[in-house]
Amino acid sequence: MTKSFQGIAASNGIAIAKAYLLVAPDLGFDVHSITDVEAEQARFDAALAASTADLEHIKAKASQNLGESEAQVFEAHLMVVADPEMSAAVKKRIVDESVNAEQALTEVTDAYTSMFEAMAGTNDYMKERAADIRDVTQRILSHLLGVNIPNPALIDEDVVLVTQDLTPSDTAQLDRQFVKGILSDLGGRTAHASIMARTLEIPAVVGTDVATSQVKDGDLVVLDGFTGHVEVNPDAQTLAAYQKKAEDFAAQKVEWAKLKTEHSVSADGKNFVVGANIGAPKDMEAVLDNGAEGVGLYRTEFLYMESDHMPTEDEQFEAYKAVLEKMVGKPVTVRTMDIGGDKHLSYWKLPEEDNPFLGYRAIRISLDQDEIFRTQLRALIRASAFGNLWIMFPMVATITEFQQAKAIYEEERAKLAEQGVPMGDIKLGIMIEIPAAAVMADQFAKEVDFFSIGTNDLIGYTMAADRGNDRVSYLYQPYNPAILRLINTVIQAAHVEGKFVAMCGEMAGDSIAIPLLVGMGLDEFSMSAPSILQTRSLIKKLETESLKHLVQKALALQTNDQVKELVEAELGDKINM
Amino acid sequence: MTKSFQGIAASNGIAIAKAYLLVAPDLGFDVHSITDVEAEQARFDAALAASTADLEHIKAKASQNLGESEAQVFEAHLMVVADPEMSAAVKKRIVDESVNAEQALTEVTDAYTSMFEAMAGTNDYMKERAADIRDVTQRILSHLLGVNIPNPALIDEDVVLVTQDLTPSDTAQLDRQFVKGILSDLGGRTAHASIMARTLEIPAVVGTDVATSQVKDGDLVVLDGFTGHVEVNPDAQTLAAYQKKAEDFAAQKVEWAKLKTEHSVSADGKNFVVGANIGAPKDMEAVLDNGAEGVGLYRTEFLYMESDHMPTEDEQFEAYKAVLEKMVGKPVTVRTMDIGGDKHLSYWKLPEEDNPFLGYRAIRISLDQDEIFRTQLRALIRASAFGNLWIMFPMVATITEFQQAKAIYEEERAKLAEQGVPMGDIKLGIMIEIPAAAVMADQFAKEVDFFSIGTNDLIGYTMAADRGNDRVSYLYQPYNPAILRLINTVIQAAHVEGKFVAMCGEMAGDSIAIPLLVGMGLDEFSMSAPSILQTRSLIKKLETESLKHLVQKALALQTNDQVKELVEAELGDKINM
Repeated sequence: MTKSFQGIAASNGIAIAKAYLLVAPDLGFDVHSITDVEAEQARFDAALAASTADLEHIKAKASQNLGESEAQVFEAHLMVVADPEMSAAVKKRIVDESVNAEQALTEVTDAYTSMFEAMAGTNDYMKERAADIRDVTQRILSHLLGVNIPNPALIDEDVVLVTQDLTPSDTAQLDRQFVKGILSDLGGRTAHASIMARTLEIPAVVGTDVATSQVKDGDLVVLDGFTGHVEVNPDAQTLAAYQKKAEDFAAQKVEWAKLKTEHSVSADGKNFVVGANIGAPKDMEAVLDNGAEGVGLYRTEFLYMESDHMPTEDEQFEAYKAVLEKMVGKPVTVRTMDIGGDKHLSYWKLPEEDNPFLGYRAIRISLDQDEIFRTQLRALIRASAFGNLWIMFPMVATITEFQQAKAIYEEERAKLAEQGVPMGDIKLGIMIEIPAAAVMADQFAKEVDFFSIGTNDLIGYTMAADRGNDRVSYLYQPYNPAILRLINTVIQAAHVEGKFVAMCGEMAGDSIAIPLLVGMGLDEFSMSAPSILQTRSLIKKLETESLKHLVQKALALQTNDQVKELVEAELGDKINM
Repeated sequence: MTKSFQGIAASNGIAIAKAYLLVAPDLGFDVHSITDVEAEQARFDAALAASTADLEHIKAKASQNLGESEAQVFEAHLMVVADPEMSAAVKKRIVDESVNAEQALTEVTDAYTSMFEAMAGTNDYMKERAADIRDVTQRILSHLLGVNIPNPALIDEDVVLVTQDLTPSDTAQLDRQFVKGILSDLGGRTAHASIMARTLEIPAVVGTDVATSQVKDGDLVVLDGFTGHVEVNPDAQTLAAYQKKAEDFAAQKVEWAKLKTEHSVSADGKNFVVGANIGAPKDMEAVLDNGAEGVGLYRTEFLYMESDHMPTEDEQFEAYKAVLEKMVGKPVTVRTMDIGGDKHLSYWKLPEEDNPFLGYRAIRISLDQDEIFRTQLRALIRASAFGNLWIMFPMVATITEFQQAKAIYEEERAKLAEQGVPMGDIKLGIMIEIPAAAVMADQFAKEVDFFSIGTNDLIGYTMAADRGNDRVSYLYQPYNPAILRLINTVIQAAHVEGKFVAMCGEMAGDSIAIPLLVGMGLDEFSMSAPSILQTRSLIKKLETESLKHLVQKALALQTNDQVKELVEAELGDKINM
C-alpha cells in the first residue's frame, strides 16, 4: 500500500531501497506438554545449528567490518551454543518434564544466569557471562519460534534501515555498502546518530514518530534526506521523480568533488578556511578526500572514551602527531578533554549529577584534577614539533579559568623546554559555548589567540534547552536572533583585537547559517568532512559585502523562522544543495 | 576546647547559644543471650514508655507549631507503640529465644514491615504503615541503647542547630523561639535552606565541611552570619566582642524598622520600589510588617506543590484575591506556574529528564498543556478586580512563546468579559531568566508591559552551572561582568520602550549588587521580606548619578572578584550591614 509521512531531515541525500526493520521481536511463548520427545529434541538441535550458523556469519562480518576485538563477543556466544552440558540439560528436561523446548531451554539458562549473577557481585566478568547466556538464549528461542532477530551486521543487500531510535552502537555496526538510508521514529537533527549518519554520508530521516509502525519489512522506501519526506511503496511516477532527484544529487556531488584542491574564496575574493571536525586519526582519510584546509576541531575525548584506561602521554602523543603529520602544516585545532555531561569513561567514574550539562565537565574537571590535564598538555606540546598546532579549552565560562589553564600549560611547556624536547609554536584559544564567554568576548579576545564557537552547546545554554530532550528540542533554534547576536558579538570582538574566529558546531555546515556567518566575517567553518565541498561551493557563490546588510536585517528580526525566511527570500537558489 | 572555623555566610545576624546536634545516631547493637528474662522484658517496657512520652511531646509540639495535619503522623506512631500484639510478640521472643530486647524487637518489626511491604504493591497506605513501624522501631531502639534521636520539634531552650545539611522539612519544623542559629557542613548561600533561614531571620553559616565533626552537643557556639566565621567555646574576650556585634545589629534593626512607612528614595531623590517575594497568602504578615511597596514575585507553584490535587480555579482565585486585598492597591506581580526543574507535584508526574533544568518546565508546560494554564489565568483575571495585578510568565525563551501565552490570556479574558465577570487592568510581563531573553530584551520590550529579572536562573544558565551542584557552585557569580552586562542590557532596553524593570532573584537584596543596580536604573527590587528595610536604608544613602560611573567601570572589568573589590573600595561603609 502506498503511504507517505514526514520526519526531520537529518542527513542529505535520497535513499530508495527495501525496508529492513531493526526492531526487537516478540519472543513470548506458551508452555505446553509434548508427547513426541525425540521430535522436540530434534527441533532443539535444529535451532542450535541455525544459531551457530547465524553467529558464525555475524562473527565473520563483524571481524571484517569492525575488527577482531569487536568480533570476540560472538566467539563467546558460539562457545555458549556449543556447550554440551547446556544442551544435555535442556534435552534431559524435555524428557523428564515433557515440556516444549522453549520452556526447557528457558528453565536451564535461567538457572545458569542466576548462578553467574549470584557469583558476580561486582565482578564484571561474571556479569558479562550471564549477559552472553541471555543473548544466546534469545537467539535459540528466535529459531524455535521462527521469528527473526534483526542484526545490522547481517545485511547483505541494499536496504533502508527502519528503527525506533538508532543507538550509537547500532550506527557503528552499519555497513555503508548496503545501508542506503536510515529512518527512525525518534531523534532530532542534532542527535549523535544523525551526526554519525552525516559523517557516513547515509541519507537519514528521523523523528517520524510512525516509521516502525507504518513500514513493514521488505516495503520499498523512498527517503528524502533534504526535506524529511518519506514515501512507502510509491507509484511509478513518484518513484521516477525521486530517482531523478537522486541522480541530480549524484551529479552535484561530482561537481563539488572538483573543488577539492581549490581555496574557499567568496565571489568577491575574500578568503575563508573550511576545515573538518574529527574524533580520531582514522577520520583523516575523509578529511583529506574532501580537501579540508585544516582540522578545526579534534575531539580528544574519543581517545579517552574508546580506551579501557586513562590514555598515557605517549599514546596521546602518537594520536596527535599522526593527525598533525597528515595535515602537513595546515592548522590542527585540538580541544582538550571534554568529559562529563553525556560523555562518560568506563574506567573513571564521575559523580552522579542532577543536571550534568550544568555540572562538572570539561575544563572544570581539568582544572580540578590537573594531573590528567598536564599529561594531555605534555603530549600536545611534544606533538607540536610535527605540524601547526592550535590548542583550545572547552566549557570556559570565566577569564580566570582561561588564565589558570594557560598557567598550567606554560608550566608544562617550560619543563619540557628545559629537557630540550623539540616543540613548535602553539596558539592557545577557547571554545565559546557558554553564554558568559560570548558576552565577555571583548575581554577574552585580549587574552587568547583565537576563538572557536561551539554552537551546539551555545544554543542549548542560551535557550536553556537540552537538544537531546524531545519535549524542548523545538527550542534548539540556530537562527534565533539571540544566537546570531551572540555569534556576531564574538566575531566582531575578536576582530577588534585581530584574533581569529572559527566555528565548529553543526551550524558551520548549515546552508541557511553560512551566508550570515560569511556576512559577519567568520574566519573558519569547521564541520564533518562530507559537508566541506558543499560549503566551499556555497561560499564561492556569495558576495560578502551584500551579506553584511543581510546580517543587519537578520539581527533586527524577532524569531528563528523570520530569519530562515529572510535568507531563503534573499538568496533563493544559491543555498539549495 | 576553643576552636574556630569558617563557612559560607548564609543569613545575617550573630547567634550565641549551645550547640544542638541534629545528626542521626548510631543504632547498631550486639545480639546476645540473656539469662534474666524478666529484667529484659522490663527494659523493653521502660523503652516503650519512654517512646510514648517522646511521641506525646513531639505530637503536642507539632500540632502547636505545624498544625493538626502534620501532627497526625505522630498519632500513627503512638498507635504502633501501644499495639499489644507487637509488645506481646517481642516479650514472647525474649522468653523463647533468650535474646536481648533489641534483637527481639528487630525480628518482630522486620516481620511486620516485610508483610506490609509485600502487601503494598503500589498501595501508598501500606507503604506508609511500614515506614511508621520502622520509625517507631528506631525510637524504641534508641531508648534501649540509651542514645538520643534528635528532633528539632523537641528543642525547648536557646540553641544553635548543627547539622550536615538542613533539609526543607527540618527547616519547616524549626521553632524560631529557640533556634537562634543554623550551622551546617554542606550547602551554599543560595540553597533553599539558606533562603528559608533568611526568611525566618535566623542567622546561618553553611558549607563549613566540619561543623558536625568539630562541634559537640552542648558546646557554646558563636556564629557570625555576616562573615561565615564560627567560634566554638570562645574565650571571654572573643565572646564579649561578638555580644557587642549582636547588640549593634539589634540596634541597627531598630533603626531600619523606623523606615517601615517611608518610600525608597535615593539620596539624590530618585524613587525606587522595594517589594517582597512570597509563596502564599500566609507570607503577607511579614510583607506588611516590613513595609513592602509591592509584591514583586508571588510564586504560585507553592499553591500546586502544597496541595494534594491540581488547585481548582476557585481555590486559586481565593489565594490571589487574599494577597491583592492585603496590598490595597499596591502592585502584586504573580508568576504563573513554574513547575518542572527541581519542583515536582505528587499528583502529576512529569517525565524523567537527563537535565531537568534544561527541560520541560514552567511556560513550556503551560503552553503544551494549556488547560491547566487557562484555569490559572481565569483565576487571576477574576482576582484582578480586587487590586493591582501584574502577571508574568516564567522561563520565556522566545518572542513566540510570549505571544502564544498572551493570546491564551486574551481568549480567557474575552470569555470572562462576555460573562460580565468584574476585572481590573492587568499588566503582562515576563521573567528574564534565560540568556536568549536577555539578549533579545529590546524586541521583548516592544511586546510586554514589564520585565522581572530572575537572577538565580539567569546566572545558572549564563554560566552553565547548576548552583545546587557543589562542584560547580563557584561559578554562581552574581557580579561577573557577563551577568552585569546582560542585566544592564535588559534595563536599558526596557527603558527605551518606557517599560518597567524589576528584579526578583537573590541578587536584588545583595548589598554589593544594589548600588550597581541603582546605577543601572532598575525600577523595583523584590526580595524576601526581612531584607526590605535594610535595602531601603542602603538606597537612601546612594547617589544615582555617581553610581552610573561605577557601573561603567564594573562592566569593563574581567571578573566577579574585581567587581566586588571595586564596589567595596568605592562605597566602603555604606554597604556594610
